[in-house]
Amino acid sequence: MTKLSPPEQIETAEIIAIGTELLLGQTLDTNSFYLSGKLSDLGINTFRRQVVGDHRERIYDAICLALELNDLVITTGGLGASQDDITIQVVAEIAGKELVADSSVTAAIRKLYPDSDRPDFIIPRIPEGAKAFPNHNGTAPASLTTFPYKGKLGRILVLPGPPSENIPLLEEQILPYLAQYSSARFIHRYVRMVGIGEYKMEQELKDLVAAQTNPTIAPYAGEGGVLLRVSQRIEAGDEDRTQALIDIIEERLGQYIYEIGTRSLEEVVADKLHSQKLTCAFAESCTGGALSACLVSLPAASKIFKGSIVSYASSVKRDLLGVDPEIIDQYGVVSAECAQAMAENCRRLFKADLNLSVTGFAGPEGATPENPIGTVYFAVAVGDKVSVHRKFFSGNRQRIINYAVATALDLLRRSCAE
Amino acid sequence: MTKLSPPEQIETAEIIAIGTELLLGQTLDTNSFYLSGKLSDLGINTFRRQVVGDHRERIYDAICLALELNDLVITTGGLGASQDDITIQVVAEIAGKELVADSSVTAAIRKLYPDSDRPDFIIPRIPEGAKAFPNHNGTAPASLTTFPYKGKLGRILVLPGPPSENIPLLEEQILPYLAQYSSARFIHRYVRMVGIGEYKMEQELKDLVAAQTNPTIAPYAGEGGVLLRVSQRIEAGDEDRTQALIDIIEERLGQYIYEIGTRSLEEVVADKLHSQKLTCAFAESCTGGALSACLVSLPAASKIFKGSIVSYASSVKRDLLGVDPEIIDQYGVVSAECAQAMAENCRRLFKADLNLSVTGFAGPEGATPENPIGTVYFAVAVGDKVSVHRKFFSGNRQRIINYAVATALDLLRRSCAE
Repeated sequence: MTKLSPPEQIETAEIIAIGTELLLGQTLDTNSFYLSGKLSDLGINTFRRQVVGDHRERIYDAICLALELNDLVITTGGLGASQDDITIQVVAEIAGKELVADSSVTAAIRKLYPDSDRPDFIIPRIPEGAKAFPNHNGTAPASLTTFPYKGKLGRILVLPGPPSENIPLLEEQILPYLAQYSSARFIHRYVRMVGIGEYKMEQELKDLVAAQTNPTIAPYAGEGGVLLRVSQRIEAGDEDRTQALIDIIEERLGQYIYEIGTRSLEEVVADKLHSQKLTCAFAESCTGGALSACLVSLPAASKIFKGSIVSYASSVKRDLLGVDPEIIDQYGVVSAECAQAMAENCRRLFKADLNLSVTGFAGPEGATPENPIGTVYFAVAVGDKVSVHRKFFSGNRQRIINYAVATALDLLRRSCAE
Repeated sequence: MTKLSPPEQIETAEIIAIGTELLLGQTLDTNSFYLSGKLSDLGINTFRRQVVGDHRERIYDAICLALELNDLVITTGGLGASQDDITIQVVAEIAGKELVADSSVTAAIRKLYPDSDRPDFIIPRIPEGAKAFPNHNGTAPASLTTFPYKGKLGRILVLPGPPSENIPLLEEQILPYLAQYSSARFIHRYVRMVGIGEYKMEQELKDLVAAQTNPTIAPYAGEGGVLLRVSQRIEAGDEDRTQALIDIIEERLGQYIYEIGTRSLEEVVADKLHSQKLTCAFAESCTGGALSACLVSLPAASKIFKGSIVSYASSVKRDLLGVDPEIIDQYGVVSAECAQAMAENCRRLFKADLNLSVTGFAGPEGATPENPIGTVYFAVAVGDKVSVHRKFFSGNRQRIINYAVATALDLLRRSCAE
């Protein structure tokens, strides 16, 4: 085992995911995603990632390219017993080491595979002098090879590809080991908003974004909501300055903020309903069950959600939900009047605390000059009160549905007392 | 618009995903995954991918590195109205072009954002002479810039980051455009199955997979179904040999196959209902509206789908759907008897041609020794006949819901006459 004394810091790392199946779009690279988050938590910066196929020269070139700029290079995949698993050979070649057996690796293999003393069983080897991390869930071990490279220290951490193997390796052995080589830490905090677009949010915060150094602010758009990330790099002795920045953001955009933290909009709604012992029910038209499905995706749904009527056809709005046919004839199914009648009938049928209706044109058919595609009406009946809301969403059918679901959830949230 | 005459072929491409959120492990890079598969379909090889942050020099370096080795460089993300969206500026700089307004881009923006003639609204620009692909679901357009680069042709395709924007752009505009620059062709044909697991499918086709050269067979597992891709690389003069292979697969696994082609299960069901002029309605419990939402996601839903009752709470099953309370008391809500009563009441209320119910335990609560978590009952009432089906799905809550939706769709499909 290589002993580094005094420990040299790791400030930058580059991840290289190896596998032709990744380049062909057959396998989604979740390893790099997971690893990136973990490195960020350790305060190790990553400026680039690469994906290459199971190809000796390309793996060689990718590792050398990454060694130039980084204190640590991490490979995932391209390991194991199969013939095209060439990563560890390339690493040994770059480091100028022989591949050798390691007693801790061999012991872990013997434990996992009782028949591994068969002559045809290939015990994996690691570069001589590398730090071994035995794999208790598969064949290929992880290893960290340290060697002089162009006048500085080269480090290559080799990980097996399957997440079921590399996640336990990282959590139990490797991340604690790497932590001793990092002095910096990051704080990441999230401000989540709905009912405001990315453009307007950025206009409101332009000065903060322009002035940012540490902490920094980064906006992200999603379907139906926007997210701001506030990040601060913490050096020894630094205090947390994220709250002061979040206070300013709240002052300006508080009306749109549903969460400062990690909960989704439906989780916030469910938590509110749950803590206030309230139930909800829906009469859905253009969202077609997507609003209900969104709440039911949460394990706690049974405590807060009674059910809904997906009254997609007009006849169902009339016969089953009980909307007065005259309302439909006079105002149409996409109207404030119809939304109100749907919410009132939802209340009559489900007797929930919050009864919400949604009806609109998601396209491609049914629009009128007054109510073009993207027009959606919402009504909320709480006790004997009903409020009606008209919104317009642009984009394709699925986008309109997604925005309508987010808006309905936001109306539910606002209908709960604080 | 740049006119390439004679068209120069695109044989290799490199994808660069841009976004600090990707490097921090906050966002999973699904764009590169999706794009890799599409490029492979076009016969365009990718040997590497990169991920870089929202950082001018790193974007610059990554694009130049990729231009050296590839006929086409594709960037995703780092676009839009925000101040840190610097990709398009870097591309213009590398190509030696000015950024200019494009009339097709401006027209699309005006249509999507009626208030975009405000003086503070920033209309996105593209490099002069680039081919524009207007975005109908967001602000930033895609563009393909072509320019001389180190004695050859440099091409940079810039895509917006959100999948809800770049997937429609690629499918509708960009992939058909790129197809004309690729001479190698792959025939990819897809055999879609439901009701069989990946392991069993592979066992049944082991000999075919072992013997494959060209065409090849690749299996993919999804939530609720499996997919086989049969691919043949076509050189000049080659004939299509995929059908002979598909005939063998059909002979062995025909009972599970719902589609040889590109339609999803819900599209197959909708097409069947539509061509036979049939309607459907649902009584959903554990799927919570997800089955209805799946059909409503299709533009043709209004012709085939009447509506549904999401009877999540027991009281809703009883009071609104009309299930006999004695059935619930005696057998429980997750039982063949309750599923049957739900389907019969669904028929009574909606009078659809196909009336389907689904009730089960998706977890984490409510299971019994006889009906553990993952047990789901389905019933289909057609005319005066009712059939009941019991299934068991393993995995977490969302996976059980997804499998239940797929199974319900498959039951609908089988309930339609051929």
